[in-house]
Amino acid sequence: MASMEKIFSDYDARKLHLESSDNQFAKGVAWVEGELTPLSHARIPLMDQGFLHSDLTYDVPAVWDGKLFRLDDHLERLNLSCEKIRLKLPLPREEIKQILMDMVAKSGIRDAFVELIVTRGLKGVRGSKGEMVNKLYMFIMPYIWVMEPEVQRAGGSAIIARTVRRVPPGSIDPTVKNLQWGDLTRAMFEANDRDAMHPFLTDGDANLTEGSGFNIVLIKNGVLYTPDRGVLHGVTRKSVMDVAKANGIEVRVEVVPVELAYQSDEIFMCTTAGGIMPITVLDGKPVNDGKIGPITKIIWDGYWKMHFDSAYTLAVDYGRV
Amino acid sequence: MASMEKIFSDYDARKLHLESSDNQFAKGVAWVEGELTPLSHARIPLMDQGFLHSDLTYDVPAVWDGKLFRLDDHLERLNLSCEKIRLKLPLPREEIKQILMDMVAKSGIRDAFVELIVTRGLKGVRGSKGEMVNKLYMFIMPYIWVMEPEVQRAGGSAIIARTVRRVPPGSIDPTVKNLQWGDLTRAMFEANDRDAMHPFLTDGDANLTEGSGFNIVLIKNGVLYTPDRGVLHGVTRKSVMDVAKANGIEVRVEVVPVELAYQSDEIFMCTTAGGIMPITVLDGKPVNDGKIGPITKIIWDGYWKMHFDSAYTLAVDYGRV
Ligand SMILES: Cc1ncc(COP(=O)(O)O)c(C=O)c1O
Ligand SMILES: Cc1ncc(COP(=O)(O)O)c(C=O)c1O
Repeated sequence: MASMEKIFSDYDARKLHLESSDNQFAKGVAWVEGELTPLSHARIPLMDQGFLHSDLTYDVPAVWDGKLFRLDDHLERLNLSCEKIRLKLPLPREEIKQILMDMVAKSGIRDAFVELIVTRGLKGVRGSKGEMVNKLYMFIMPYIWVMEPEVQRAGGSAIIARTVRRVPPGSIDPTVKNLQWGDLTRAMFEANDRDAMHPFLTDGDANLTEGSGFNIVLIKNGVLYTPDRGVLHGVTRKSVMDVAKANGIEVRVEVVPVELAYQSDEIFMCTTAGGIMPITVLDGKPVNDGKIGPITKIIWDGYWKMHFDSAYTLAVDYGRV
Repeated sequence: MASMEKIFSDYDARKLHLESSDNQFAKGVAWVEGELTPLSHARIPLMDQGFLHSDLTYDVPAVWDGKLFRLDDHLERLNLSCEKIRLKLPLPREEIKQILMDMVAKSGIRDAFVELIVTRGLKGVRGSKGEMVNKLYMFIMPYIWVMEPEVQRAGGSAIIARTVRRVPPGSIDPTVKNLQWGDLTRAMFEANDRDAMHPFLTDGDANLTEGSGFNIVLIKNGVLYTPDRGVLHGVTRKSVMDVAKANGIEVRVEVVPVELAYQSDEIFMCTTAGGIMPITVLDGKPVNDGKIGPITKIIWDGYWKMHFDSAYTLAVDYGRV
């Protein structure tokens, strides 16, 4: 994986540079009610139903090497999520884009985790038609790795959670990206208790769903398998499918029995905050020969290559501020 | 229901008095990081995992006619909830009690909704042992009625939700009082769409669970039925059981099939924010003869009587401040 070393070393250099910055927003900046604030000082109203009932949806795009990655896909998904739970994006999409670009530029952060949260609004505060006035909060901070680069080099460990199952879509729709992480948090504790890094959750009926902030992809006999239901439609997963297609690799989005995980040749997790994350140990046993497999490598390389393809990126103009 | 009219008219008088108050905390007061703030101005850190992952538990006691009701039961449940999800109450219980009493006294509110929220704490902020430092937020505000007194006089309407089911305990434990209301919010929209006031949720297997902030009690042939699993162990439900016992009425806490709701003689909901709330219309059809039944009346009267019994109450000393 020649490209892996290059991706990580370039990133390390940018990170070092950021860490020596005296920009007040270098550790993160939040946009709350039109004001920019250093992230650690940002506050939201206690009476926001986003806090009081987790009545919200959100999305997380990223900035890589100064370029927003697949921003339109994230804003499109955010818009769909809002519609599904009867929220309205409080600002036009173009304006949100401009504010985000401005925040990234002002922070000087070249590799960023970006979060947009749309909440139902403040309890007791209603608009002219008697409706709750939905609220938008945004913040950016230095890129977060669900699996550290160090670990990505050799692969991480996962468990199939036994003490908790994923919330079913009939209760809370997982295609509406949400922060009701009760099941995912329980699963993270279980993974930690069982000396593993990441939990995979079942649907309670012996099928795989997803993990604590990532989709799951299994590889068997050269074919990619990923669950079709009970999961978020990940933008990273979409990139995985794009890379697979470009490389003539078949992808099946269908019901994935847990059993298939134990028979897989390769396994990886994928999410915006970390990309393609190889799993080489499952439930304490090596996956296949315990090494990162050839198809995972192809997907990994292709995924990061997209980050330098103008078809998927939007360059931030840092000079403008 | 002679006592109902007295309870409501005394309350109305106190409410009118409060509304003419010029106390800055009369509309509510929040305790955040040791500071008291008028509730509408209170803010919490955006980076709190209580907001960012709804990683929290909470409880809601109430103040009635200047007396805290079953406060120890609520604090005991809060403590158990914390233990179940590996949180620690950030302050000793006695100190929390003192702060609450002080807040109520300072606000002058005689009938109050009280909320205590314990969150995992701030992302990235860790204590000396590398652990997250849990946070406590508290607020009080004028009493909230899940069912308005006006409606309680004749009974309200409910539906059995069809478009959503309650989150299963194997995903998120409902005995840990939580704010992950995705399923409950969906159900409230469904109730509204179907011209009813309140939703009852099933467990997805044709059994009843609870509603959007209340437990459900069915009455058939003089016996009370309430679901044993998939629900919060409501403190109001506990009072219902106490009143039933004192009146020689049998209570069965067991699996309650949805079917039983359609065959019930009487139905009521119960919660701290509203008490005993009769349901006289279910899925658009009258429950029995569509009038509030005799057992519901006994429970209603007994429940409010407890609010003037020193065995269950703790008087606030308003003169002290
Ligand atoms: C539950 C869950 N599944 C999957 C994902 C991956 O989504 P994406 O690839 O769009 O980042 C996330 C991202 O946070 C998530 O929270
Ligand atoms: C989901 C749920 N069930 C039941 C209840 C009733 O609990 P309690 O009687 O302790 O107020 C509540 C109260 O908010 C609740 O949120």
